[in-house]
Amino acid sequence: MAIISLTTDFGTSDWFVGSMKGVILAIEPTATIVDLTHEVPAGDVRAGAFALAAGAKCFPRFTIHIVVVDPGVGSERGVIAVRTADYVFVAPDNGVLSFALANEPILDIRSVERDAYFRKPVSNTFQGRDIFAPVAGHLAKGLLLESLGPKIRGYGELVWTEPAEVGGAVRGEIVWIDHFGNAVTNINGLPRGATGVRVPAKVECDIKEFYQQAPPGQPLALIGSTGFLEIALNSGHAAQSFSLKIGDPVVVK
Amino acid sequence: MAIISLTTDFGTSDWFVGSMKGVILAIEPTATIVDLTHEVPAGDVRAGAFALAAGAKCFPRFTIHIVVVDPGVGSERGVIAVRTADYVFVAPDNGVLSFALANEPILDIRSVERDAYFRKPVSNTFQGRDIFAPVAGHLAKGLLLESLGPKIRGYGELVWTEPAEVGGAVRGEIVWIDHFGNAVTNINGLPRGATGVRVPAKVECDIKEFYQQAPPGQPLALIGSTGFLEIALNSGHAAQSFSLKIGDPVVVK
Amino acid sequence: MAIISLTTDFGTSDWFVGSMKGVILAIEPTATIVDLTHEVPAGDVRAGAFALAAGAKCFPRFTIHIVVVDPGVGSERGVIAVRTADYVFVAPDNGVLSFALANEPILDIRSVERDAYFRKPVSNTFQGRDIFAPVAGHLAKGLLLESLGPKIRGYGELVWTEPAEVGGAVRGEIVWIDHFGNAVTNINGLPRGATGVRVPAKVECDIKEFYQQAPPGQPLALIGSTGFLEIALNSGHAAQSFSLKIGDPVVVK
Repeated sequence: MAIISLTTDFGTSDWFVGSMKGVILAIEPTATIVDLTHEVPAGDVRAGAFALAAGAKCFPRFTIHIVVVDPGVGSERGVIAVRTADYVFVAPDNGVLSFALANEPILDIRSVERDAYFRKPVSNTFQGRDIFAPVAGHLAKGLLLESLGPKIRGYGELVWTEPAEVGGAVRGEIVWIDHFGNAVTNINGLPRGATGVRVPAKVECDIKEFYQQAPPGQPLALIGSTGFLEIALNSGHAAQSFSLKIGDPVVVK
Repeated sequence: MAIISLTTDFGTSDWFVGSMKGVILAIEPTATIVDLTHEVPAGDVRAGAFALAAGAKCFPRFTIHIVVVDPGVGSERGVIAVRTADYVFVAPDNGVLSFALANEPILDIRSVERDAYFRKPVSNTFQGRDIFAPVAGHLAKGLLLESLGPKIRGYGELVWTEPAEVGGAVRGEIVWIDHFGNAVTNINGLPRGATGVRVPAKVECDIKEFYQQAPPGQPLALIGSTGFLEIALNSGHAAQSFSLKIGDPVVVK
Repeated sequence: MAIISLTTDFGTSDWFVGSMKGVILAIEPTATIVDLTHEVPAGDVRAGAFALAAGAKCFPRFTIHIVVVDPGVGSERGVIAVRTADYVFVAPDNGVLSFALANEPILDIRSVERDAYFRKPVSNTFQGRDIFAPVAGHLAKGLLLESLGPKIRGYGELVWTEPAEVGGAVRGEIVWIDHFGNAVTNINGLPRGATGVRVPAKVECDIKEFYQQAPPGQPLALIGSTGFLEIALNSGHAAQSFSLKIGDPVVVK
């Protein structure tokens, strides 16, 4: 009855995700497996960290969140399992858990080393199938985190760039472009007195509460569903229309 | 043990669909959740209505069909829950249920307003997560439709353009392009004596029974799996090869 | 509690896969349905056969593997159900099972003809919904393979092109391009003394053990997770960068 979520950059055109699910179900046939997303841009640890943080907290307590965005697969980077009050996370130790863990009390961190719980032989290129999936299956079946390997003190962290105040204006950046073309920024909530947003040389718009408050074809900014300020285009794709890209600076007036 | 189907325009590149599933499972962990499709073109209510009508009736009785194609999210448009003899549907009241409900006896319609069943705070941009998913979870857990809000008389309907008879020929239009490039029309079944089909200035072909009855690389028309006439290309992509688009007129000879 | 895997070329933009799942669950509501992949290139039986062989063996014993890559749908090609020691496979008899069955002892092959187990009327274009899904549902519910139709002796086989030795070098070809742009070859394992790989006029590289052993932006070859030699690009997309295509010759030095 355990619930497992999967977040990867594997896409869905190969047998990769299906193979992971097969391995999990071979160990714990009653597991409920949910795709958070498999379309994290290939090898983009920061994007994976953002997607996980945005989605993980919707899941019920005791969900096992498996994250495989792992450009270092096969190298010496470690694999970690982390228990918080609500969840267990298993991921490469490359920072991909940073944002999801940022505000959570951490109860235990383990270096995942006990290869009795791996699928053999362990491939150098597909540890999603050979390490992450079987570990998920065993945890779903009731294995204690302690059994996976020795306790460790910390984990690799990504730096989350905080917005800065420059000349009286808040200045942040774009961190995610969603399916609808909305550009999500790292600006959490509305700065006091904010009325408009500008991406220099690209677009300038007012702050609204929902998409249809702007006329069709007009840009707007609003607080999106993750709590971050985002730039949108009513009935359109803001990122394509204004060439918005991850990393673009965003200024709030 | 309840079954929930999801039809949205969310795509699968973000955490949106996974978040909805997390919210549902947090309320009813034994629900079986099935993706009907998440690739309805963004904001295209008519396309969503067509996909739902084509797929929903394959599901077992008592399935809860959740539909979130909702360009008006955050505005004053309502949310409705509809019970038919076989199913419950929950959707924005924008017409997206029109085609699925067209030939079904409707037993009850409710305006979904009781916010005790919502996730708080309700976002202005992601009500899939904050209204539709928790309502689905509660219905799966046994909540009565009556509990969601007051009874209402009707719901927003889209107009289904019926094919017309013009100068002895049946004239319809293309309503859907599928993954294989087949162009599905609104012409339900074969008009008597029909032998061929024409999309003016684009393609002309004979009516067959299955794809391989046309030589490879040749177009054909046939009654597709939804009962509608469609234009296909054996071993090819008809829509790309003949520039077929939704809305193109189709004449049956 | 039965597990069913689905491998198709249906994509996920239509209601096709969701409809199949609805039909299965209407017959056996407790089935666990797993997508192996739905993005086999349209009508590419060989690619479907490769994906199935790569992924199927990760699944638990008694999994029912359903494969619908079926350019001959509606024509006279048969449908087969095959039992091996570990699995049941149901597919069109067009060779798509060849590679998955190549090294498995086959216990029984049936021609799937008993239309009592089909959904009626059977469409000429969507037998995934009308034949494969209901047969899967009935098998999941406990139906014996024998009930599906008469025993047959053999099944259609694809020829697997074996690499050849030409002038002291092993010469194979590319058989799959994955989501990351890695080009998988038909060369199973490393030929003795091999140190490098060449795709004539396109790329030449050394053999490594994992991606990061090559400098970022540099190509490499390695034994991939299926046991086959593949050509990759550390932190890049080898297929796009070097215009690698299925069928390209590959020479091992």
